[in-house]
Amino acid sequence: MKARVTVTLKAGVLDPQGQAIQGSLKSLGFASVESVRQGKVFDVELGESELPRAEANLKAMCEKLLANTVVENYTIEITP
Amino acid sequence: MKARVTVTLKAGVLDPQGQAIQGSLKSLGFASVESVRQGKVFDVELGESELPRAEANLKAMCEKLLANTVVENYTIEITP
Repeated sequence: MKARVTVTLKAGVLDPQGQAIQGSLKSLGFASVESVRQGKVFDVELGESELPRAEANLKAMCEKLLANTVVENYTIEITP
Repeated sequence: MKARVTVTLKAGVLDPQGQAIQGSLKSLGFASVESVRQGKVFDVELGESELPRAEANLKAMCEKLLANTVVENYTIEITP
């Protein structure tokens, strides 16, 4: 089973990397860019056939390693 | 208008960071993890009201800055 975990910064958390990208886009001529926030995406393949167990496992992975839940949100999409 | 750009490594391109995460997950007890590939996500806000122009702009941003199209794929999702 495949899953995509998307980790993004919470609202209000500063994102200097995103700001740098925004600056670069502006200097490349993309004047309409109002903000850029960068996040991470993890494509995980699981050798797990039960959906609830896969979901629970992925949630635990996010809490323990993939996301820093103090400053980041995560979403999990599972493709069975 | 808001857009999410997701940049992932092409199939076949080595992903040492993903492999390191996979190793860490295994050592944390997640034995069912078969592979992990890491990518990037950009949440872009555009001050643009026309959908086709926003789309064209985002595509140009990906080609010029956000993705390295030699080794990476990108997808664009627009929320008007």
